[in-house]
Amino acid sequence: MVLKSQVLLCREKMRMTGSRHRVVIVGGGFGGINVTRALTGADADVTVVDRTNHHLFQPLLYQVAAGILPEGLIAPALRNVIRKQANARTLLASVEDLDVPGRIVSAVAPDGRPLALPYDTLVVASGAADAYFGHEEWAEFAPGLKTLEDARHLRSHILSAFEMAELAATPAEQAQYLTFVVIGAGPTGVELVGQLAELAHQVLPRDYRSAVPAEAKILLVEAGPAVLSAFHPKLQRYTQRRLEEMGVDVRLNTAAIAMSHDSITVRGPEREEQIPARTKIWAAGVQASPLAGILAEVTGAGTDRAGRIAVLPDCSLPGHPEIFAVGDMISLNQLPGVAQPAIQQGKYVGKLIRARLRDTAAAKPFRYRDKGNMATIGHLSAVTDSSGLRFTGVIGYTMWGFVHVLYLIDWGNRIATMYTWARALTFTKNRAHRVITFEQARYELGQHSGEGKIPGGL
Amino acid sequence: MVLKSQVLLCREKMRMTGSRHRVVIVGGGFGGINVTRALTGADADVTVVDRTNHHLFQPLLYQVAAGILPEGLIAPALRNVIRKQANARTLLASVEDLDVPGRIVSAVAPDGRPLALPYDTLVVASGAADAYFGHEEWAEFAPGLKTLEDARHLRSHILSAFEMAELAATPAEQAQYLTFVVIGAGPTGVELVGQLAELAHQVLPRDYRSAVPAEAKILLVEAGPAVLSAFHPKLQRYTQRRLEEMGVDVRLNTAAIAMSHDSITVRGPEREEQIPARTKIWAAGVQASPLAGILAEVTGAGTDRAGRIAVLPDCSLPGHPEIFAVGDMISLNQLPGVAQPAIQQGKYVGKLIRARLRDTAAAKPFRYRDKGNMATIGHLSAVTDSSGLRFTGVIGYTMWGFVHVLYLIDWGNRIATMYTWARALTFTKNRAHRVITFEQARYELGQHSGEGKIPGGL
Repeated sequence: MVLKSQVLLCREKMRMTGSRHRVVIVGGGFGGINVTRALTGADADVTVVDRTNHHLFQPLLYQVAAGILPEGLIAPALRNVIRKQANARTLLASVEDLDVPGRIVSAVAPDGRPLALPYDTLVVASGAADAYFGHEEWAEFAPGLKTLEDARHLRSHILSAFEMAELAATPAEQAQYLTFVVIGAGPTGVELVGQLAELAHQVLPRDYRSAVPAEAKILLVEAGPAVLSAFHPKLQRYTQRRLEEMGVDVRLNTAAIAMSHDSITVRGPEREEQIPARTKIWAAGVQASPLAGILAEVTGAGTDRAGRIAVLPDCSLPGHPEIFAVGDMISLNQLPGVAQPAIQQGKYVGKLIRARLRDTAAAKPFRYRDKGNMATIGHLSAVTDSSGLRFTGVIGYTMWGFVHVLYLIDWGNRIATMYTWARALTFTKNRAHRVITFEQARYELGQHSGEGKIPGGL
Repeated sequence: MVLKSQVLLCREKMRMTGSRHRVVIVGGGFGGINVTRALTGADADVTVVDRTNHHLFQPLLYQVAAGILPEGLIAPALRNVIRKQANARTLLASVEDLDVPGRIVSAVAPDGRPLALPYDTLVVASGAADAYFGHEEWAEFAPGLKTLEDARHLRSHILSAFEMAELAATPAEQAQYLTFVVIGAGPTGVELVGQLAELAHQVLPRDYRSAVPAEAKILLVEAGPAVLSAFHPKLQRYTQRRLEEMGVDVRLNTAAIAMSHDSITVRGPEREEQIPARTKIWAAGVQASPLAGILAEVTGAGTDRAGRIAVLPDCSLPGHPEIFAVGDMISLNQLPGVAQPAIQQGKYVGKLIRARLRDTAAAKPFRYRDKGNMATIGHLSAVTDSSGLRFTGVIGYTMWGFVHVLYLIDWGNRIATMYTWARALTFTKNRAHRVITFEQARYELGQHSGEGKIPGGL
């Protein structure tokens, strides 16, 4: 419910004049931040609302989960990112509802205060969350890796499992702790199993007195016939071979069919198998943010199976030229849920809003420029596939590193990231960022029920 | 309760032979890690038990709370710290009881499993926690800064307060959010108010559109007649003047007498005052770990007002030459609760155990070598006081930085810390490590009751 007094309060607080065009952007990810930046100097007041205080560089999130990078390097404060953009501001709040006829975004601040943000133009860029295809109960057993909280939980979970494996009373219990199953062999799944294999077989054995970590089993379960389905078959075969050399058990044409606290059941081409495993990680699918559903209902736009909304070719909503949606929550051209479509759509929509503010010509439809695919596998090994040029191994790895560092925000973070990689991945093979506490470990080793959620993930 | 089967299990799991001397060290802080290192190559099996997986470099904890350093740089994994020491191992567990006659340490693993660790020599180095001098209810309103969890909470709390200040409905509410009160003007209190002043007056104003952060009030409340009571009066006066120049309201001869969720009442030389303030930080006193009380009861050793145990001059317990205690939990020579006594006692006890194992001469009593005091105040400003040589300003700051980097573990962490300081403190004045999520902010802004604790602090 939107309170009128709250609307006025908010206007005053934001020091917005009634006369200036107000753009509200929901989400400070790749989509939202690129809309914002494209509006630099535009004659509009821009407000970015996000549930966190940072812009998350999701492609390197698995490195936080693996203890390689500290969070700060891939999550600069949104306020800091837009500090030089005088017409933009940011708000830490959770958007709960959209009042499309009234042109008001309803949010709630962390202290419970309701906020009403009136807009002239709205950009919804609230991304996607993990989808369990009708098995929502699996979320408890096999968390995904979309947010920094997810990465914190995953890191605690993995490190706690290794800590406990040494104390296991029976070989069966030890096997539970030392079996890691990743479901889904897209880039996230491949990068995660690669890091798990390095942790178990390269990094941790140096720190443990017993043979325990090296005994870890790492499984990559994929329902389709190949890893990295979006990549060229040559790269798929290379990736699978490299992973197997690193000790990863790659199971293709295999689906998860059941899960519990300490096991997972998979159905392969030949048989069903129940695998004892405390750690299951979901990298098999996403669904659009619930705001896509709200927009679809109000505007009559369709949604696909993943809940992604069908926007018009200019990323606006049917009948509502003042509302745009970008990134993982839209189904335009069936683009993959990676950074590039969100970045390009964000820039496009930002330019389109600028053009409208100047009353210049109608925009051309959004056109995606495919910059290719990349994924790391492990130590000095990655695959890249761009405009038919394909690289593997050290060359692929160098290209991957170069591109990812370049897309980080702030030169300070770029240099720190390169230093951290040189240290963690090339020279010492240490993982410097792997702090856990007793309480974190206790939470991760529990049944995740009756103990209360850990807000913030750590 | 100690289960016999668990004892045997534990021996077997630890791959300890019954014949080798077993040293159990409780706590992996400055005391514990220095005992461990001094036992390198000794004919003994060394087990370090800690509630976390890391060795915390506490003197830089305030920099984690202030968003300057990522946790990993000051908290390397204990396993990694001792990786080259073949006779030492570490366990993530919470020590619950000491069976002195039976020579067994009772602990519990994070998964709830009871652990019984038999020892021939025991070193208890479990430090100290915040003491509220009969006002334990203040712990809820004014948390301290002893652990990484504390630093995580404090960082979230401070950043959330600034986030909410912009949204405050009334000037009174805004003042609550923007008033930060630190109780206790020892090094930790001084360093904290210095960082709060820099955040509010230097760092955040660049990131905010409004004048809000600069309006912050930062108070340092000290019951005694001077800041930094252990320092030379010249340095005390310098520190107070510098803090006041930085906008800190220093209140001497002033004690906290009441607290609530959103205010603190202090009694100064002239009057009592209730100050609206959401953020209160406790840096006014500590009490020894509860294990000091258990040891005192069993061995008949005395404890002082802070619960610190009176050990013999060689750090052993009366009547129990096989038990040592070191660091903040002992009252030997009334040394201050800083790193140096713990480091030096740890080294001393490690050497003493080695000498005993070789049956060499009885040890001389522990003798503390005073290396002086240091504290940072703020940007390029610190005070150092060593053997009558006193420095302030940039020279003091450089010496402070040099000494602290030198004491960090691992060259990789030293380089990364120097880089981070150059970036955060000298050039950009940014704080790169300030990630918060909606859930963290919501927790910190709540009444800290009825919402459950956040295990792990984030």
